[in-house]
Amino acid sequence: MNIQLALDRLTIPEAIRLTRLVESDIDWIEVGTSLIKEFGMDSVREMKNAFPHKTILADTKTTDNAKYEAEISFTAGADIITVMGTAPLITIETCMEMARSYKKRVMIDFLNTSREQQESLLAIEGAIFCLHISKDEQELMGERAWKNNQTAAGYLTAKHTIAAAGGITLDSLPQLLASGIDIAIIGSAITKADNPSNVAKQFRKLAKGGAFINE
Amino acid sequence: MNIQLALDRLTIPEAIRLTRLVESDIDWIEVGTSLIKEFGMDSVREMKNAFPHKTILADTKTTDNAKYEAEISFTAGADIITVMGTAPLITIETCMEMARSYKKRVMIDFLNTSREQQESLLAIEGAIFCLHISKDEQELMGERAWKNNQTAAGYLTAKHTIAAAGGITLDSLPQLLASGIDIAIIGSAITKADNPSNVAKQFRKLAKGGAFINE
Repeated sequence: MNIQLALDRLTIPEAIRLTRLVESDIDWIEVGTSLIKEFGMDSVREMKNAFPHKTILADTKTTDNAKYEAEISFTAGADIITVMGTAPLITIETCMEMARSYKKRVMIDFLNTSREQQESLLAIEGAIFCLHISKDEQELMGERAWKNNQTAAGYLTAKHTIAAAGGITLDSLPQLLASGIDIAIIGSAITKADNPSNVAKQFRKLAKGGAFINE
Repeated sequence: MNIQLALDRLTIPEAIRLTRLVESDIDWIEVGTSLIKEFGMDSVREMKNAFPHKTILADTKTTDNAKYEAEISFTAGADIITVMGTAPLITIETCMEMARSYKKRVMIDFLNTSREQQESLLAIEGAIFCLHISKDEQELMGERAWKNNQTAAGYLTAKHTIAAAGGITLDSLPQLLASGIDIAIIGSAITKADNPSNVAKQFRKLAKGGAFINE
């Protein structure tokens, strides 16, 4: 299992400083939607410059204008972009095409998708699928949110590359590992920890009990 | 009917220069998603500074993290933000709450929503509802896209404030006027015109045959 560090509600220098503390214990770096909307593609560019050997995911949450958003993200240094599963299919397909032409990847965000939408999206080859409980839902529902989501995700198979995001902690990670998740997206459990480096090490130890995936 | 000028795939100086050309013939200025994702909140701040007396819509396409995105947008100078109709309901409700506390407004984007979702969202008081054919769908379907969308929108009533976006031209505006649309969102028909000022004047002439709405 890989660890993706999600950076949100931070300035770019804060994001860089924080990532340096945990760099050796995380696999992928997510430039969060809040950084992109607050600082634009500079956030992606500066994170890639600071961590050129890391896989950078730009959480663009693309919903339209796929070609343009893919282009500005990939040229800014993103290795992976995200597209909403609730977007029109043509938008998702255009992201996939752009990723193929740039030799990059796409994560399809299942936030608020129906089971029917998820089943249809799972046929898309080469995508990473992200089971996602939003920040807003976490604040509303707390622990309950994950339970509903995991039930819905019971039909995923081993051939899919699956990420999970939303309030994941050291306590909930083992269960996700057991359910076959390939990428655990960790935000505030690391970024808001008193000792981020120490917590990241614990996440790594748990995660690397599982299988590695190709980057 | 009001005209909202949608600014996309431009630099901030280009957006300012273009808006100056048509300022007197348009009502609202939309800082497009592509400007926000490319340049961050500077795009909103600089447009509000350049046009302090105009209503500025930040097309944030919020899907999560509503409180934070509303805060950074409203404090940057946005008068209206957008939230996706496909977002979790709590995200839409949080945008509405934030708008009330900032005395600003929210446009709910109906892109790729089902009729059931639309009917439930139309109960939200004070929102602007946006019938939206995405850029990607326009490229795929052309004229057909609007026909489908307008049929689906036949159940809107006069008490709702309705915007329409997606490839609107001088030819298609009269039909939208007749169907009771309150805000026409015009992008490339003006921004890519040989003479944007002249085209904007024609849009204004057509639009102001209809009723004004409160800003």
